[in-house]
Parts: sequence; structure tokens; C-alpha cells
Amino acid sequence: MMKTTCLSLLFILCLLGSASTVCQGQTYDGPEEEIDAIIAASVAFSQHYMKGDFDKMAASYTLNGAILPPGADIIQGREAIEKRWTLPEGVSISHHRSTPTEITVSGDFAYDIGYYEGTTVKKDGTESSWKGKYLIVWKKVDGKWLIHMDAWNGV
Amino acid sequence: MMKTTCLSLLFILCLLGSASTVCQGQTYDGPEEEIDAIIAASVAFSQHYMKGDFDKMAASYTLNGAILPPGADIIQGREAIEKRWTLPEGVSISHHRSTPTEITVSGDFAYDIGYYEGTTVKKDGTESSWKGKYLIVWKKVDGKWLIHMDAWNGV
Repeated sequence: MMKTTCLSLLFILCLLGSASTVCQGQTYDGPEEEIDAIIAASVAFSQHYMKGDFDKMAASYTLNGAILPPGADIIQGREAIEKRWTLPEGVSISHHRSTPTEITVSGDFAYDIGYYEGTTVKKDGTESSWKGKYLIVWKKVDGKWLIHMDAWNGV
Repeated sequence: MMKTTCLSLLFILCLLGSASTVCQGQTYDGPEEEIDAIIAASVAFSQHYMKGDFDKMAASYTLNGAILPPGADIIQGREAIEKRWTLPEGVSISHHRSTPTEITVSGDFAYDIGYYEGTTVKKDGTESSWKGKYLIVWKKVDGKWLIHMDAWNGV
């Protein structure tokens, strides 16, 4: 709730042009409550990843949702998606964040393009950071925004 | 015209389940004429690439369209997109094809997911083939379907 309010505030500041650093290059097109809900779902996804809640990550997708990870075929369905996101024992994600550059809502679909970044903590405790860009198609199912198509690659 | 008719025929065969090889795993959701127009635009894009018509490739995108090539930042706008697609002198594309697994139309937007494959002919005449998968968001502008967001990566 706190987060949504905070994001709404950022969104309003963005519209007013008074938070150019935060909002630089960001374009939101659609009802504010829908944009807020999508941003909140994106933040929740990062939190699930950092907590190692792989089942909740999978539940962030539609039932026939698909991911397009670099170097693999299209992976479709929650079970297969959960398997792909699940980290080996002892490996964790200490940081994950997505920063949209554009979110556009069209009815029960939306697309969301931007950059992601993260840090993996390996078994031996060493960290490796990575970043890239993504294109997500969101779908609103039973009033909830879910990731429907999720493609990404490195920068 | 011939192509559209041919694609329509394939589409109908697909619906009838009598062309499973061609249509395996393909899902089309939306008005047939819109799906046909998107497929035709995708085929035309491949033809422009094979002919080295880089300006026509760029014109296949919306004015603020974006591409997400692996290993680069988001590239936005026709001029920048044309620059990215333009091949060095003496290099050409002898084969390019996109095979959608799903196209869904929602109003003036559509998303299109699938696989692509191509062959590059290098300056010394040797060929290298490549393939991958893509996620495209199409946008209908003044009655014409244009590529709006285009992400891809290897398999």
C-alpha cells in the first residue's frame, strides 16, 4: 500500500515534470490506477526473486504465459517458468530492479519496456551483477495484472 | 495480394486442423483480416532485409518504435533503427523468415511471439546461419500495422 502510494506520488511528480531525474525518459499511457498496478506487480516480482519465492514468481505469470530467456527456446506455462527461475541451492539474488521507460495500457493488455538490473550471490559468497533490457506484455486476468509475455537480453 | 490470399488459406487450414505441420503450435486471436495484415507485414519485413532495403525496414516501424537487440541499449526511432539494421558493404542476407507461434490482436495493438531464422553472406562469400526467438508489439497507425516494440534473442 505504502509502495503504491509512493509510486503514485512519483507518477504525479513525473506528470508535473518536477521529478525529471526519477522520470527521465519514462512514458506512461493509460489509466493511472492501471499503470500503478503494473508497476506494483513489477516491484513485487523483484521482491519474490530476492526472497527466493519462485512459486510466487511463477504465479506472477498468466497460466499460458511465456518467457524468452537468452539462449533457450520459448518457455511456456507456470510450471516450466518456475523451473527456469529456480536458483540452485545456495545461490541467491541480493538485488533486482526493473525500471520501465514506457508502459502503455490498451484494454486488458499492456506493454512495458525498460531496463533491469540484479546481483547474484554465488555459493562461495562472491557476487556478480548484471543488467539488461526487457519487453513485457501484461494481461489483466480477473482484475489482476499478470506477466503474459516476457523477453529480455543483456545490454 | 497473392501472399495474403495464400496466408489466409494457411490460416483457414490451420483452423481446420488440416495443416498441422505448417500451423503446429500457432495460435491466432483476433479478426482474420488483422492477423493476415500482420503476417503480411512480417513477410514484407523479411523481404526488405533480403533485398537490403534498409529504409523500408525502418519504415516498417512506428515513428517512435524501438528495437531491443542483444548486447545493446534500447534503440528508438526510425533513423537509429535503420542505422542498426544497415549491413556493411558487401554483406547481405540470403534468407530471413519469422514464424509466429502466437499473434493476438487487441484494438490497435497486437503482440506477436515466435521464432526467426536467417543466413548472412559475408564479404568473402561464406555463409553463417542464425536463429532465435522474438516478441513484437505491433501498432496499427492510419490503418497500417507497424512494428512498435521489437525484442529478440538467440535460442
